[in-house]
Amino acid sequence: MSLLTVGSVAFDAIETPFGKTDKIIGGAGTYIAFASSYFQPSQNIVSVVGEDFPKEMIAKLESRGVNVEGLQVKEGEKTFFWSGKYHNDMNTRDTLVTELNVLEHFDPIIPASYQGAEYVLLGNLSPQVQSTVIERLTERPKLVAMDTMNFWMDIAMDDLKKTLTMVDVLIINDEEARQLSGEYSLVRAARVIRDMGPKYLIIKKGEHGALLFHGDKIFSAPALPLEEVFDPTGAGDTFAGGFMGYIASTDDYSFENMKRAIIAGSALASFCVEKFGTEKLENLTKEEVDARIEEFVRLTNFDMVHTVG
Amino acid sequence: MSLLTVGSVAFDAIETPFGKTDKIIGGAGTYIAFASSYFQPSQNIVSVVGEDFPKEMIAKLESRGVNVEGLQVKEGEKTFFWSGKYHNDMNTRDTLVTELNVLEHFDPIIPASYQGAEYVLLGNLSPQVQSTVIERLTERPKLVAMDTMNFWMDIAMDDLKKTLTMVDVLIINDEEARQLSGEYSLVRAARVIRDMGPKYLIIKKGEHGALLFHGDKIFSAPALPLEEVFDPTGAGDTFAGGFMGYIASTDDYSFENMKRAIIAGSALASFCVEKFGTEKLENLTKEEVDARIEEFVRLTNFDMVHTVG
Repeated sequence: MSLLTVGSVAFDAIETPFGKTDKIIGGAGTYIAFASSYFQPSQNIVSVVGEDFPKEMIAKLESRGVNVEGLQVKEGEKTFFWSGKYHNDMNTRDTLVTELNVLEHFDPIIPASYQGAEYVLLGNLSPQVQSTVIERLTERPKLVAMDTMNFWMDIAMDDLKKTLTMVDVLIINDEEARQLSGEYSLVRAARVIRDMGPKYLIIKKGEHGALLFHGDKIFSAPALPLEEVFDPTGAGDTFAGGFMGYIASTDDYSFENMKRAIIAGSALASFCVEKFGTEKLENLTKEEVDARIEEFVRLTNFDMVHTVG
Repeated sequence: MSLLTVGSVAFDAIETPFGKTDKIIGGAGTYIAFASSYFQPSQNIVSVVGEDFPKEMIAKLESRGVNVEGLQVKEGEKTFFWSGKYHNDMNTRDTLVTELNVLEHFDPIIPASYQGAEYVLLGNLSPQVQSTVIERLTERPKLVAMDTMNFWMDIAMDDLKKTLTMVDVLIINDEEARQLSGEYSLVRAARVIRDMGPKYLIIKKGEHGALLFHGDKIFSAPALPLEEVFDPTGAGDTFAGGFMGYIASTDDYSFENMKRAIIAGSALASFCVEKFGTEKLENLTKEEVDARIEEFVRLTNFDMVHTVG
């Protein structure tokens, strides 16, 4: 089914306890596009880059089934740049540099050929841009999911609250859920946030997995215990991309299928952190992804019926 | 099957963001005994209290199938007392008072009628006391599990390492696993710790659930997302007691059954935190426990086979 993804395509410079990169390709939209492509063979992307963005990377996205008609290339302007440094625990980081560049006045133009999208994933961007995308869609998609972050809660809470009334699924991390709701307990936070609009809430807990809330149901997905987290950048975007790619490819947004989609997203996220940036995500095989999903099944599977054996 | 539990029976005074208690009944052995009693109808306890310990509490333990022949009551001495204050996150706490009292020279005497125990759970106590218990058993049990804490790693690492060579299952939390192994990654920590002796390692992660490591297998169990954690005291002991009670009652220590036992222990721990001290644990019904276990099944259950519906 048709999938529209929206998110930044950017440069990152990353420092972790394991090493340091120069400018490499990053951005929520990039991670989302690569991740969803493992389930959904085609997607339409809306984003913006400057003239400094490498053509080969755009070609690489196209080779993964990404239609780049909606990827604006701004002549004479520079691509969004983010630089950050992770602490030793790899769960917290400091932002060193944020240069908005082309993102500062990003007008998310939806090409006519993109209209009719059934599934839409809005990566982390200003909530005003996110709501503009939804308003420009001529038909209401079957399911709209969005990511956001604490930054927007600090400076654009009203815009964010408006956007939340327009989406079906919100995907955020535990600290963001606490900030958005003002509740420490994630169960209470989930109730408050779902009252803001999204019928489905996914709370990402990093190395501790993810929770899906809907109605009075909760699903708890584990993260794969990893020997080493090399670079967490993009893991959340990868999770969201894998989730939505799975939903779109199966054309099923039931609660049962969302559980599978969360496992699919978690599997891709577990690859993402194994190398710097998108490196690991660019060249996985279907067999590797399937084997990783199977690891999640083995990791969590139990049957309470005891048969003395 | 026969179960021997060893652990402190004590007084606690607890302060949380929700309130404060006077001296109430606590101690690892108490939580373990109550928890395991929901699966295993009889158990033999080895512990020590002072003459100040209330007889009614001993009667209450007996009413839950706990044989108190091995519970020494020291005339003219005082029961172990611990006091602590939880921070707002409920995950960290400060110890305010520790009065060892009868625990200072605790000699864990095993009554003759206790010999032949098939399952043994050594609650958190000095590793020297723990190893003495094992040495005093005339037959090797089928399975010996133990808990410990960072305190013993700080002051009695050699004793602890000796005790670790004598047990099958170690149950500790994530921070303790990191301290014991010197590794931040729990996967690496698990490898280092299992090289110290225990073939099975359970790492408790509080509100994030627990991990079981054995051979090249890992099982990840969730914690139940709770509206409110009222008092976390004893949750780890309750988990261990429920785990071992389940194992003993089913007489099956296969990896598959350990998964079930972890869910059983997690279910009881989720009750424990709902009230101060052992209050909630003292009077559960089998139906309540079964229903809670069923909640864990619903919380984690997924089936990757997608059938378009």
